[in-house]
Amino acid sequence: MKCRKCKEKAIIKLYEHNLPLCKEHFLEFVEGRVQKAITDFGMVRKKERVLVVISGGKDSLTLAFLLRKLGYKISLLHIDLGIDGYSEISRKFCEEFAHLYQLPLQVISIKKEWGKGIKELARETYKSPCSLCGLVKRYYFNKFAYENGFSCVATGHNLDDMVSALMANLLGWRISYIAKQTPVLPEEGKLKKRIKPLVYLTEREIAAYAFLQRIPFSRQDCPYAYTASFLKIKHLLNQLEVSSPGTKYSFYLGFLKNKQLFGEGKVTLRECALCGFPTVTEICSFCKTFRKEEVRNYAGES
Amino acid sequence: MKCRKCKEKAIIKLYEHNLPLCKEHFLEFVEGRVQKAITDFGMVRKKERVLVVISGGKDSLTLAFLLRKLGYKISLLHIDLGIDGYSEISRKFCEEFAHLYQLPLQVISIKKEWGKGIKELARETYKSPCSLCGLVKRYYFNKFAYENGFSCVATGHNLDDMVSALMANLLGWRISYIAKQTPVLPEEGKLKKRIKPLVYLTEREIAAYAFLQRIPFSRQDCPYAYTASFLKIKHLLNQLEVSSPGTKYSFYLGFLKNKQLFGEGKVTLRECALCGFPTVTEICSFCKTFRKEEVRNYAGES
Repeated sequence: MKCRKCKEKAIIKLYEHNLPLCKEHFLEFVEGRVQKAITDFGMVRKKERVLVVISGGKDSLTLAFLLRKLGYKISLLHIDLGIDGYSEISRKFCEEFAHLYQLPLQVISIKKEWGKGIKELARETYKSPCSLCGLVKRYYFNKFAYENGFSCVATGHNLDDMVSALMANLLGWRISYIAKQTPVLPEEGKLKKRIKPLVYLTEREIAAYAFLQRIPFSRQDCPYAYTASFLKIKHLLNQLEVSSPGTKYSFYLGFLKNKQLFGEGKVTLRECALCGFPTVTEICSFCKTFRKEEVRNYAGES
Repeated sequence: MKCRKCKEKAIIKLYEHNLPLCKEHFLEFVEGRVQKAITDFGMVRKKERVLVVISGGKDSLTLAFLLRKLGYKISLLHIDLGIDGYSEISRKFCEEFAHLYQLPLQVISIKKEWGKGIKELARETYKSPCSLCGLVKRYYFNKFAYENGFSCVATGHNLDDMVSALMANLLGWRISYIAKQTPVLPEEGKLKKRIKPLVYLTEREIAAYAFLQRIPFSRQDCPYAYTASFLKIKHLLNQLEVSSPGTKYSFYLGFLKNKQLFGEGKVTLRECALCGFPTVTEICSFCKTFRKEEVRNYAGES
């Protein structure tokens, strides 16, 4: 198998593009896809300050690596979820990465903030660890970006993530969520712009890139990942991809062309009566979950 | 496992409804689902004449059995596709069924009409056997219903068929096709109303019903079925159903609630310049495929 570009020995075949590539041209391909996504969707310009949220896994670290390589001004934020036997390792990889590539890193520790980890907080608040984790991450990375003058927050969601979330939301006809499965969510008040520059890359392509660039990343799965039903959907979409390469890519591009069918995905936001950050209701989900006593006091006063 | 209704021994558990049922109550359940679909979507009234298209397989024969049992006035139509070693058996089952239940049956033989079977016609017309088969069936059952005074055509599409077609069309964002994945397609000019009374039943439920009622049906798969990509999607949706029972049902009901997102699915129909039956273009697909010389003559004249 020879590289389509230079006829040297290919090291990977990208089935969805029917494209065998050598190491050099594969790295170029991946970098080109990220730049193309940034340009196509007007994600960010080089003078803006980007906050990259990193978990310690391959996607977010590769995203940080790529944005740095492409010349973007980035800082890193890691949210330490306080899951025993898991979060310590994740954090170590983030710190190692920041040190290796000389990038500023901030860590927000849930245990430091709330005295306990996500697992215990989920039990106390009667939420699933996955939904609580999502809530906590979204709240903290937005707050941090807002308070520290970043123009946007970049996350490591890849094509597989986008497609499986889209499919899960289609299966449940959650229209307002479907409308939001876009590579950019624009800034609105205190809600900072969110961008997903890996949207044109599959998990496989990112893993291969991370491996070839020797990016050290954590290979552990979150101990709660089994509860996430979208993993099942991801697995099924992968089966479909094997029999019809390119299905995921064309499904997502087709969605972007037709997303107006699902409306703007816009809701009227106001500022939470307790923390001041954006919410659709009087008090935001974060405060409702974590500041129960203040919520009670507020309800008593008003 | 006991029947939810009568506490007798259950013979089947309907996972999507979490409902164990005995034979008697399962048969009642299936009949109730068909009547409910007919009522919910205003498919047909008892005084109307219904043309049931039968292939010899379990779905269409069970549909005919059920409509007859529920008191509808039905006639049967079988389209003999002329596939050697397959169509003879299918036709035999249709004839046996019609004889057994004393129902009028008409057979349209593709070999008699065109001198050769679907396989040869597909090769000559550069179409896949599946798309040609669909074209031929739709054309003939509509023409037959129109010319013989039927109020509608009933087909044996079940929930699995509807859901996998919907999913295939969503994956390809074929909006006008998505809009048409409904249990009733209304009459329009010479296009007769089409109804799918098995829309609330899964393949498994229909197979169990056919078995319990001892309906003799052909168990053979069409020799070209492997080319149909929607079979792959059906298989994947079944996997999802096993891990989350009820997914298919709620996905389809959610679609029906939200189908207005995809527009009316209406296109302006006119009459084909050659055969007079409905088409969106000047000459219908059927004539374009089968009446090439007449099409050439027509093009020369006009």
